[in-house]
Amino acid sequence: MKKNPRIAIYPGTFDPVTNGHLDIMKRSLKLFDRLVVAVALNPKKNPMFSVGERVGFIKSAAKGWKNFEVHPFDNLLVDCAVEHQATVIIKGLRAVSDFEFELQMGLMNRNLKEEIETLFMIPSLEYSFLSSSFVKEIARHRGNVAKLAPKHVANELKKNLK
Amino acid sequence: MKKNPRIAIYPGTFDPVTNGHLDIMKRSLKLFDRLVVAVALNPKKNPMFSVGERVGFIKSAAKGWKNFEVHPFDNLLVDCAVEHQATVIIKGLRAVSDFEFELQMGLMNRNLKEEIETLFMIPSLEYSFLSSSFVKEIARHRGNVAKLAPKHVANELKKNLK
Amino acid sequence: MKKNPRIAIYPGTFDPVTNGHLDIMKRSLKLFDRLVVAVALNPKKNPMFSVGERVGFIKSAAKGWKNFEVHPFDNLLVDCAVEHQATVIIKGLRAVSDFEFELQMGLMNRNLKEEIETLFMIPSLEYSFLSSSFVKEIARHRGNVAKLAPKHVANELKKNLK
Amino acid sequence: MKKNPRIAIYPGTFDPVTNGHLDIMKRSLKLFDRLVVAVALNPKKNPMFSVGERVGFIKSAAKGWKNFEVHPFDNLLVDCAVEHQATVIIKGLRAVSDFEFELQMGLMNRNLKEEIETLFMIPSLEYSFLSSSFVKEIARHRGNVAKLAPKHVANELKKNLK
Amino acid sequence: MKKNPRIAIYPGTFDPVTNGHLDIMKRSLKLFDRLVVAVALNPKKNPMFSVGERVGFIKSAAKGWKNFEVHPFDNLLVDCAVEHQATVIIKGLRAVSDFEFELQMGLMNRNLKEEIETLFMIPSLEYSFLSSSFVKEIARHRGNVAKLAPKHVANELKKNLK
Amino acid sequence: MKKNPRIAIYPGTFDPVTNGHLDIMKRSLKLFDRLVVAVALNPKKNPMFSVGERVGFIKSAAKGWKNFEVHPFDNLLVDCAVEHQATVIIKGLRAVSDFEFELQMGLMNRNLKEEIETLFMIPSLEYSFLSSSFVKEIARHRGNVAKLAPKHVANELKKNLK
Repeated sequence: MKKNPRIAIYPGTFDPVTNGHLDIMKRSLKLFDRLVVAVALNPKKNPMFSVGERVGFIKSAAKGWKNFEVHPFDNLLVDCAVEHQATVIIKGLRAVSDFEFELQMGLMNRNLKEEIETLFMIPSLEYSFLSSSFVKEIARHRGNVAKLAPKHVANELKKNLK
Repeated sequence: MKKNPRIAIYPGTFDPVTNGHLDIMKRSLKLFDRLVVAVALNPKKNPMFSVGERVGFIKSAAKGWKNFEVHPFDNLLVDCAVEHQATVIIKGLRAVSDFEFELQMGLMNRNLKEEIETLFMIPSLEYSFLSSSFVKEIARHRGNVAKLAPKHVANELKKNLK
Repeated sequence: MKKNPRIAIYPGTFDPVTNGHLDIMKRSLKLFDRLVVAVALNPKKNPMFSVGERVGFIKSAAKGWKNFEVHPFDNLLVDCAVEHQATVIIKGLRAVSDFEFELQMGLMNRNLKEEIETLFMIPSLEYSFLSSSFVKEIARHRGNVAKLAPKHVANELKKNLK
Repeated sequence: MKKNPRIAIYPGTFDPVTNGHLDIMKRSLKLFDRLVVAVALNPKKNPMFSVGERVGFIKSAAKGWKNFEVHPFDNLLVDCAVEHQATVIIKGLRAVSDFEFELQMGLMNRNLKEEIETLFMIPSLEYSFLSSSFVKEIARHRGNVAKLAPKHVANELKKNLK
Repeated sequence: MKKNPRIAIYPGTFDPVTNGHLDIMKRSLKLFDRLVVAVALNPKKNPMFSVGERVGFIKSAAKGWKNFEVHPFDNLLVDCAVEHQATVIIKGLRAVSDFEFELQMGLMNRNLKEEIETLFMIPSLEYSFLSSSFVKEIARHRGNVAKLAPKHVANELKKNLK
Repeated sequence: MKKNPRIAIYPGTFDPVTNGHLDIMKRSLKLFDRLVVAVALNPKKNPMFSVGERVGFIKSAAKGWKNFEVHPFDNLLVDCAVEHQATVIIKGLRAVSDFEFELQMGLMNRNLKEEIETLFMIPSLEYSFLSSSFVKEIARHRGNVAKLAPKHVANELKKNLK
């Protein structure tokens, strides 16, 4: 008798997706039967790209990937996880301040829905300093983001800043 | 000869008060002769509830408590402490990033008024992940905050979000 | 076509196993097809119990658990993982200093064997302060460890300290 | 009707007592009716001075202080607190790694004896880098510890290292 | 044959400059042949003073200092460093959360321009709690900032808040 | 008129030197007129290699480097710095727990000798997980340390463990 398929959800604002996010997605795909990337609407953070654009960027970057979905969400993360039958929330960790906040979130999410487990992964060293804000900051000052984000994202950033 | 009564002040924005805050208040009441809860106006943080509402929420939750007062304040915390004859500032600590910031605040407050001591307390484990922002976030997405905040606060959150 | 069974390894000294360790084991069993607990010989840490005793304590506590194995090991953790076909290393995280050290270990292990992923899990809140050293320290001073470790471990600790 | 006298306990190895420890003691004396300094036997740490010498150093430094006692202890800290009717454990905090460990200890102690509260205090800035190990390290290399520890401790360190 | 002059750049928003910033500047001047203070435009942070005022405050405070320049900048920090032939970025560190963020920035800047090194310095203990925001907060509530910022800055803060 | 030559000291146990240490040395050489590597005797840490061997490993790795010296030391670091006319102590930083400890050391050293400045550098990302203990641990279990330490060190580790 087999267990149910194990589905993981990887939430974020992804404004825009970086190579660090894609690294975590690839690592997760090896460990679970399906990966659902959940893109938070997050109007309070006042994102540079619409949730539709952000979902689109990830879909383009992940062309041809199997067992992989991208969806926008605007409810509680644990409710979104349940909708997609996910039993695992994936988080990438870079720094101590990340960890503290994510630990708090993980405990809160467990409090809301006990059966969903939060798992933390280590991104590739080469992306350990990377964040969407840094990518935007560099693009804003006409720096080169070619090694930090997929090509189509880099192009959109350029267009957007004109 | 007795020492003067020992009065502690517990400052915060309390937007809104959570069960974690109330836990720290109860613990403090056992250790000091009087506890003054000081509710910061904090217009820059753009609070969801007015300072009057926030004071009211705490008063309702603390009905019948002795040696206990709640006041709004809009001056320097150390000046507010002096007004109320408090010699101790109480802070609840959850995480490392809390601690770092609070240590800085504590040193700054000592620099401003040497005779006032800052004391850090550990909240109950069950509230170690809890913050006002999380409570609002959950309420905003129609999650259940019954175990996280007093009943009247939960009700106001529901009304407010309609 | 199915992926290979996903096997996770959970390494430690387990001197002795605590309820916190058992909590992480139970959580891991839900997420993977098999869990291998790997008990480090660790003579440098000068453990209170022999590696045989430590393996035995875990086996007794896990009686009847399925897809679960316990083995001693004295080679590199990544080599031990390969031996058991594990592709995931599980670590329980409590505090920031844990996290920093474990992040370093995780990066080192990735450097040694790229295809093995380290995943961090959050233990139950009620065990977030628990460690084998604390359990031994309490037992040494005749404190009560009944809620902190399995009964047979508590008994052995008592015997051992006479 | 008055509350019972509030008694605080300040535990440590004090091998030897530093000006940083004395600073925390003086700050505590202002806040509580009595302060009990509890000197841990701690044979595992292999202290430089016997517990008797360590108690003696503190007594000499605190000559004339009121509502102040020093005792050796070798049981669980919470049991020692109960013996002395203390309801508060005092800890001085310097750094984040201190804080993490002390938070764990505080939660463990609350688990063992719920009614005893741990309070953290900030030492004077000028002692924020100070520890017994640093004082011993400096003395060992014939550095000047005159500003770091009481005079009689500095003298004993010199004698001891000949 | 001599090496080229070693030029360091010390970037910040300096809204306004504090005695802590000036302490780092003086320490840096002893170690490098020239120090360039770079004042970020930073419109997103919504500064209290214009970049021209902020540059002016530093120039007044540094009257008579040699090998010292102050400039506004609005490009990438590493590009600004190259413009001024700086090979070193100076950062003052107070707390762990500072450190984490600055480590991330340092790695990002190295990624953008490999030959520029980030160096972290420890400010004087007496300024270890100090930040521009605290100074503004205190001034806003009519507290005394005389020991925290240069006199002319203190005066401008007073004027500005009327 | 030129300033005096700027001499930096880089202290450590170097048991044995790793590629991470060598990375910091090369980065420091670009910034200062001379670099003195100071190898601590450190008998309490019970090192695997004698101080003579540890000095020799660094000398072999640094063959042909200019403005570079290696010396053993067994006095206070600040006294050793003065002996070599160094005005700067260099420290490589990897993690938060490193940082906390090093901050404490830096403040202590400033307290002992005010005119000596401690500077923190970021090692190459590829060495951010590396430490002498990890190298020894891996060698002990017959893992491959070729990318982690110089060749002659790797060979000595192998010999030593037979």
